[in-house]
Amino acid sequence: MEHTYAVIMAGGGGTRLWPVSRKQTPKQLLPLLGRETLFQGTIARLEKLFPPERILVVTVAEQAREMQKQAPTIPVENYLIEPAPRGTASVVGLAAAVLRKRDPQAMMAIQTSDHYIRNHDLFHYLISAAFEVAQNGFLVTLGISPTYPAIGYGYIQQGEPLDGNYRYPVYAVKSFKEKPDERTAQQMLRSGDHSWNSGMFVWSADTIMSEIERQMPELCKAVNKIAAAWGTPEQNNVLQSYWYDLRSQTIDYGVMERAEKVAVLPASGLGWSDVGSWDSLFDVLLPDMNGNVATNGQHLALDTNNTLVYTSDDERLVVTIGLDDMVIVDAGDVLMICKVDQSQKVRDVVEHLKKHRQEKYL
Amino acid sequence: MEHTYAVIMAGGGGTRLWPVSRKQTPKQLLPLLGRETLFQGTIARLEKLFPPERILVVTVAEQAREMQKQAPTIPVENYLIEPAPRGTASVVGLAAAVLRKRDPQAMMAIQTSDHYIRNHDLFHYLISAAFEVAQNGFLVTLGISPTYPAIGYGYIQQGEPLDGNYRYPVYAVKSFKEKPDERTAQQMLRSGDHSWNSGMFVWSADTIMSEIERQMPELCKAVNKIAAAWGTPEQNNVLQSYWYDLRSQTIDYGVMERAEKVAVLPASGLGWSDVGSWDSLFDVLLPDMNGNVATNGQHLALDTNNTLVYTSDDERLVVTIGLDDMVIVDAGDVLMICKVDQSQKVRDVVEHLKKHRQEKYL
Repeated sequence: MEHTYAVIMAGGGGTRLWPVSRKQTPKQLLPLLGRETLFQGTIARLEKLFPPERILVVTVAEQAREMQKQAPTIPVENYLIEPAPRGTASVVGLAAAVLRKRDPQAMMAIQTSDHYIRNHDLFHYLISAAFEVAQNGFLVTLGISPTYPAIGYGYIQQGEPLDGNYRYPVYAVKSFKEKPDERTAQQMLRSGDHSWNSGMFVWSADTIMSEIERQMPELCKAVNKIAAAWGTPEQNNVLQSYWYDLRSQTIDYGVMERAEKVAVLPASGLGWSDVGSWDSLFDVLLPDMNGNVATNGQHLALDTNNTLVYTSDDERLVVTIGLDDMVIVDAGDVLMICKVDQSQKVRDVVEHLKKHRQEKYL
Repeated sequence: MEHTYAVIMAGGGGTRLWPVSRKQTPKQLLPLLGRETLFQGTIARLEKLFPPERILVVTVAEQAREMQKQAPTIPVENYLIEPAPRGTASVVGLAAAVLRKRDPQAMMAIQTSDHYIRNHDLFHYLISAAFEVAQNGFLVTLGISPTYPAIGYGYIQQGEPLDGNYRYPVYAVKSFKEKPDERTAQQMLRSGDHSWNSGMFVWSADTIMSEIERQMPELCKAVNKIAAAWGTPEQNNVLQSYWYDLRSQTIDYGVMERAEKVAVLPASGLGWSDVGSWDSLFDVLLPDMNGNVATNGQHLALDTNNTLVYTSDDERLVVTIGLDDMVIVDAGDVLMICKVDQSQKVRDVVEHLKKHRQEKYL
């Protein structure tokens, strides 16, 4: 599929895996799974489907250097640098306009940089299937069939199956739904026609630009101006002069919710995780026979079960005696020890530190 | 009481509070209780009863410099340096011989350097009472009335009360007993006539030297030779030439068990602890209203109860979420997290590290 491109949205920050992920060290750049970072895992997964020159990375200047170090195969000119964060709609618009200039027939697979996918073969199969659907003018979203009533994700409700002899079941999207409360999440899980919104999309540059033109005309105008100057000596000046005025908006709210031809491929068995909390990281790591996982360092476990030990220090010896269901995170100036089922309270800790102006730990 | 002296036995090493106490940093020199080390606590407790020039410290060369730094009030000449560890009998013999040379009427209170005592007033009262008894030619041991069936201590069985109008009940010693098994410990606790052997003794230099002469004539001869050269240019040569040949022996086995006039003062309410394990350290620290104790660093506790956080790093933030009855010890290259009631397993860890030649952690 010679006109297909992967576009990795990699500019995000955030402290959901605090104290390891910090303002300055976002989780996609951390070796959470062992030796490889989530960003490197994303690149490796995509390189089986796309040659490196057709993988683009959109990120911010502060992260670009580290990414180039972590993924040396990606050509430098494939990094699109956002002068400042303006939401995923702006990222998609920029990438689509620039790509369309490079290749008028460009098809794009929008990818997150900081998620985990276990089943690579299925992933490749689904992306290929999604490109088939996108060829017919659809904006295709990759949905994840829910395995529990998650309240942390947006949901996509599917409608009728699409006509067309596709290699994987694909449905018209009935509606996008925001993060639900517990009860609503239960209902959506039982309904059988809802998927989690994975943030992965497949479409042609033409189709998404048409929708952006219709729904976000200012963004369309700006990214077209930027694309016209792309690769010329004026590139940076034009980028700067239009970018800062953009309204910050997500692609979901800005475009997808009111787009015309939207489809969903509900994937099950992908082994997908957004690695958005310590317990979800724990879920995707391979434990030993006592259910323990240790990344880096040395873990000496006595009467210890179902415990994750994360340390960034290879020389550190971590001894645990009589522990069950625990997450231990040793991150330089901060040590966190947390019962697995309470790991969502990391947010409360981050809030507390903000409130008490302990910026150095954030 | 102008002829009374305190002799602190401070040469011990050991790894019972591993990973904080190490071969090179014994527990008496560590600020386990906050700002003050156990050694400094011992000095402070004794200075209310003895002027600094009558407090002696027997230790090894590796520790002497740090002790002088921690206790600057003690004159340098009051440090007796063991060329090598030869057990508490040798320490007591050396101190008694040297002291008797300095003051023929010397009375000695033998003290440990690494124990904790909460009730200072009672301690002073008991030591004074013990000196009264020792005046009459007794070797007096300070017993601790047991509060649970400990298997980690030696026991002293008391016999008849001594005649004499002493200010505190004092008994003839019927027998010394080694560390018991669980069942024997239960019986001794119920008997009501057993005390823990605290390792604190009071006697006159003359009396203990007579017993050493009778039971350990070689030690007697050696320390008398050393004492004769003490304070002369020959001091070190003589010390070295006799010391290395000494048999390593404890004062309990070497002298006390077969001594003639032995008495015990069974102390209750002293708030004594040998601080021999993390749970026993926890017992002597003052917890907050959730039962938590943090030494140094900053402890941010969410849903955390009865948890001890020990860190040597003042800049470190320790976050605990959903923890109960836990000991967290953050000691540079080692992090240990342990259920309180399993803290005796630290020994197994130390054994494991020895066996696997991970000396750097010991």
